[in-house]
Amino acid sequence: MEISRPSLEERAAECARELTFSATVAYDGAPFAGFAKQPGQLTVQGELEQALGLLFRRPVDVVCAGRTDAGVHARGQVVSFDIDECELRGRTPYNLRRSLNALTCEGIAVRAVEERPRGFSARFDAQWREYKYFLATGDTPPVFTDRTAWYVGPNLDIAAMERGAAHLIGEHDFKSFCMAASAVGKPTCRNVEEISIASEETLGEPHRVITVRGNAFLHSMVRTIVGTLVMVGRGQRDPDWVAEVLAARDRQAAGENAPACGLIFWSVGY
Amino acid sequence: MEISRPSLEERAAECARELTFSATVAYDGAPFAGFAKQPGQLTVQGELEQALGLLFRRPVDVVCAGRTDAGVHARGQVVSFDIDECELRGRTPYNLRRSLNALTCEGIAVRAVEERPRGFSARFDAQWREYKYFLATGDTPPVFTDRTAWYVGPNLDIAAMERGAAHLIGEHDFKSFCMAASAVGKPTCRNVEEISIASEETLGEPHRVITVRGNAFLHSMVRTIVGTLVMVGRGQRDPDWVAEVLAARDRQAAGENAPACGLIFWSVGY
Repeated sequence: MEISRPSLEERAAECARELTFSATVAYDGAPFAGFAKQPGQLTVQGELEQALGLLFRRPVDVVCAGRTDAGVHARGQVVSFDIDECELRGRTPYNLRRSLNALTCEGIAVRAVEERPRGFSARFDAQWREYKYFLATGDTPPVFTDRTAWYVGPNLDIAAMERGAAHLIGEHDFKSFCMAASAVGKPTCRNVEEISIASEETLGEPHRVITVRGNAFLHSMVRTIVGTLVMVGRGQRDPDWVAEVLAARDRQAAGENAPACGLIFWSVGY
Repeated sequence: MEISRPSLEERAAECARELTFSATVAYDGAPFAGFAKQPGQLTVQGELEQALGLLFRRPVDVVCAGRTDAGVHARGQVVSFDIDECELRGRTPYNLRRSLNALTCEGIAVRAVEERPRGFSARFDAQWREYKYFLATGDTPPVFTDRTAWYVGPNLDIAAMERGAAHLIGEHDFKSFCMAASAVGKPTCRNVEEISIASEETLGEPHRVITVRGNAFLHSMVRTIVGTLVMVGRGQRDPDWVAEVLAARDRQAAGENAPACGLIFWSVGY
C-alpha cells in the first residue's frame, strides 16, 4: 500500500492556514510586574510569549482580555494568539495547554486552550468582563487569605455600600474612576452591569466579595470603585457621595485605590 | 466621702484567686516548626508563651487542644492558661486578645479570649476535635491555595473514598494510622464520629474538603487517613483495603502521610 504524501503545493497551502487559539490563564499576581510585557521585568505576557516562542521557534504575540496591574491576580484571564496550521505539527489544544504549563513559571496556570474562529481577539470580542474583590472582614487579619484579600475589619455598613454602588450601574463616564494619566484624550464611558456584595467564608475566615461586571474597564477602575465604596462602608462618606464622585469626572474626587492583592480578574464572556 | 481601700489581707486573698482563660488561635503553619515549643525554633506555643510572659512578667504555660506538626495550619486551635486575678490589673478578655495579637509574630491570629471555669483545660475538657483537609482537584495546580491544599488532580473516585472512609467510623484501635514512634506503649483507641467529603470552590478553584471529627487523634492520624483514602480515590487500592489497614494495627499497612500544608485544625467542642 502506497502512503500518500502531501505535495509541496499542498503543504504550502496548509501552512497559509492561520488558526486562532485562546488560552484561559490563572495567575497569582504577587510575583509579577503586571500582565503587560516590560523589558527586564517578570510579567505574565512575557512568560506566555516566551513559552510560545520556545514552542514555535519564532516570536508569537498574545492579546489579552484585560491588562492587570502589578499584584493583581487572575482566575480567568483570556489571551488569544495565531499559529499557522503547519507549525502545530499535530499538537492538539490539550497538548498546547500542557506545553504552556510546562514552559511558564510557577504562579501561572493555563486552565484551557481552545481553537477559536479565525481572527478571534481576546480583547475585541469580549462581551463582558468580571472582577471579584475580596475584603477580609474578621476581628483579626486573615492568616490564610492575606495574599488574596484586603483586611478591612468587621464594621463595614454593607447596605450603605450597596446604595452607593447603585449610582454606578449603567453607562456612565467613569473618568473619576480612572488613573489620571491613562484617561488623557481617551474615551472614558463604560457600561457597568453589576456590582454586588456577597458574604463568603474562605478557608474558614469571613469575607465580603464585591463582584463587578461590565463591558470594559478603565485603568484601575475596579480598585477605585472598591476604595470609594469602602469609604462609604466605613461611614466616612454618604452613599450619595458616590454620585458626586461620578459627576465630578475627576480622579481626585474618588477614594483611594484599593490594594492590588484583593483583586482577581475572574472571567470574561464572549 | 471616704474611699474604701482593700486591706492587705483582702488583696492577698484576691491574688490567690486564679482565673482560667482560653484563647482561640488561628495560624498559617508554614513558618512554624509545629505547635509544641522546641528550643531555638519558631513554634506557636513558644510565641504564645513568650507573649504571655511579656504581659505578666513571669513564665505562663499554655495547654493546647491538639498539637499540630510542622506546616499544619489551624483555624480554631484552643489553648488554656491560668492567671492570678491581681495580675490582670483590670485587663478584660478583649484587652488580652489585643495584647496577644500585638505581641505574637505574623502568621498567628488570636481570634478570641474567654474566661473559663477555674481549672478548665483546653486539652482534657475537649469533647471533640475537627480537622479539614483540602485537596485541590483542578486540571492544573492551584495558584491561590498552593499554601493550603494538596494538589491531587481531577480524577479521584469520591464514592470509593467514601466507602473506604466508612470502615473508620466508630471506636477502633487506630494504631495503623499513628506515627510508629508515638504509638509505643500508649493507648491507640480513638472514636471517629465523622469523615465526610464535600465539593468546594475556594478562590475560584475546585477542591474536595475531607472533614474528620472525633474525640481525639493520634500523632499524624488525620494525614494518614487522608493519604490512605487518596490511594483508594486514585484506584490504587479497593475501598475494603481500608478495613485491612485498620485490622493490621501496623503503620506500614497504611498509605503515606498526606502533606502537612493541606491540613487545617478547624475547631474544638467543649
